[in-house]
Amino acid sequence: MSAMQAKPEVTLLSAGPGDLDLLTLKAVKALAAAEVLLVDELVNPDIVEFAARARVIRVGKRAGCRSTPQDFICRLMRRYALQGLRVVRVKGGDALLFGRAGEEIEFLQAAGIRVRVINGISAAFAAAAALGVSLTHRDHCHGVTFVTAHTHDHGEPDWAALARSGTTLAIYMGMRRIQSLAACLAMHMHADTPVAIVQSASQPGEQRRLTTLAALTQAPPEFVPQQPGVILVGTVLSDVARVGGQASPPTSGVCFSSASSSFFTASGERV
Amino acid sequence: MSAMQAKPEVTLLSAGPGDLDLLTLKAVKALAAAEVLLVDELVNPDIVEFAARARVIRVGKRAGCRSTPQDFICRLMRRYALQGLRVVRVKGGDALLFGRAGEEIEFLQAAGIRVRVINGISAAFAAAAALGVSLTHRDHCHGVTFVTAHTHDHGEPDWAALARSGTTLAIYMGMRRIQSLAACLAMHMHADTPVAIVQSASQPGEQRRLTTLAALTQAPPEFVPQQPGVILVGTVLSDVARVGGQASPPTSGVCFSSASSSFFTASGERV
Repeated sequence: MSAMQAKPEVTLLSAGPGDLDLLTLKAVKALAAAEVLLVDELVNPDIVEFAARARVIRVGKRAGCRSTPQDFICRLMRRYALQGLRVVRVKGGDALLFGRAGEEIEFLQAAGIRVRVINGISAAFAAAAALGVSLTHRDHCHGVTFVTAHTHDHGEPDWAALARSGTTLAIYMGMRRIQSLAACLAMHMHADTPVAIVQSASQPGEQRRLTTLAALTQAPPEFVPQQPGVILVGTVLSDVARVGGQASPPTSGVCFSSASSSFFTASGERV
Repeated sequence: MSAMQAKPEVTLLSAGPGDLDLLTLKAVKALAAAEVLLVDELVNPDIVEFAARARVIRVGKRAGCRSTPQDFICRLMRRYALQGLRVVRVKGGDALLFGRAGEEIEFLQAAGIRVRVINGISAAFAAAAALGVSLTHRDHCHGVTFVTAHTHDHGEPDWAALARSGTTLAIYMGMRRIQSLAACLAMHMHADTPVAIVQSASQPGEQRRLTTLAALTQAPPEFVPQQPGVILVGTVLSDVARVGGQASPPTSGVCFSSASSSFFTASGERV
């Protein structure tokens, strides 16, 4: 065990939505001190430049791709931590939201390893920043719900209850089934409820689109394949159009802009 | 208008939960360039040390205290931005969650002022990090709802729907009425649902407590007065006790520890 690392410890480090300028100072310090870095696939690969001393191991569980099994990742962390090395496990967004951090914390603590968590910016916050809207607005709602549409493990969220809660919805891992999600939500919410879709928030390839539940239900939208995205649903999104509306060339249906500084709505309005 | 600032712009900057190490690199850069800094009352006052060039104006709307009216803050920002100065408006947590950023963005954009948002760590994430638990866990829930219990403007959230949603609840601005909140939630959730209360998450005065809805309903808990806190409710919190449980001296009822590194549950168990 190294002289500096008194007790075995693993740092769960949140890498944020992609823009490395959104790393916290705390994260930057932990990366600089890291001796072993386990990096998820969805994390900006350039993050390793902050960790000059570290041996880098790429792991990850990208949906639908081959990936490193969770228990193998846990055992890797345990092995290096028990060797006295400074182990930093890097996860996208905030590690404590949809990151399976719970399982990793449980495993490590059961092995007598201390776990330190460093927070980060979750994608829905970066999406809201990109759109220039608040996730909550006292004219519209009492809060926001971050929910995963990933149904692999435990069935569906209770969409009726979520709709009734009146909170803005920030839906993660829902891009692949966005049309059926919209149809489901439209059963419980007004069909003209605004929906914003932000892919790769904060990154150079950021894509923003504004539409409605009804429009999404009717037309399968075009997306950048394999790019993770957040789907925001709620009347707060009506502020995007209201405050940023400008004339723009008419387009048919929902479409992308190629520039990162503007995007188009279903009716061709640039926001 | 200064040579560097081509178009009037205001930066809404999220200061995070208090620990200035949780500022993002992007925030640090914006602070260094700031010429006028408008700082909310709940923000760590030492943040001004990052803004050496800036004229600092303290504003804020702390509950129950005299504060700077919202429209005055908006007019201040507009005035300095139209003078071509680099205006940075600093809000606690993430500006896009319960920060009334929506109103400020709307006001500024209506005045032709561009608004840039820099994200930060919201208190509930810091609270979860302090507790060493994930806000979501696929064994327990599909998501987490951030909700304000502040009823000044628009009545109550729909607690029944929130309970039925099955998401973890992260309740902001609920410390003053925590007992009635617990009673209300206990009507819709199991009485033994775990509750964690974290005051001043990430800061030296951080206080963590673990209890249940039933215990909260019966005994008004002791709090550090005036210290903002987040109330986390949900079965994910059962992991706090499970993974961190250690022997501790028996105590009667819910109590504080004075150390920031441990706290006690209602049954006297240190977590």
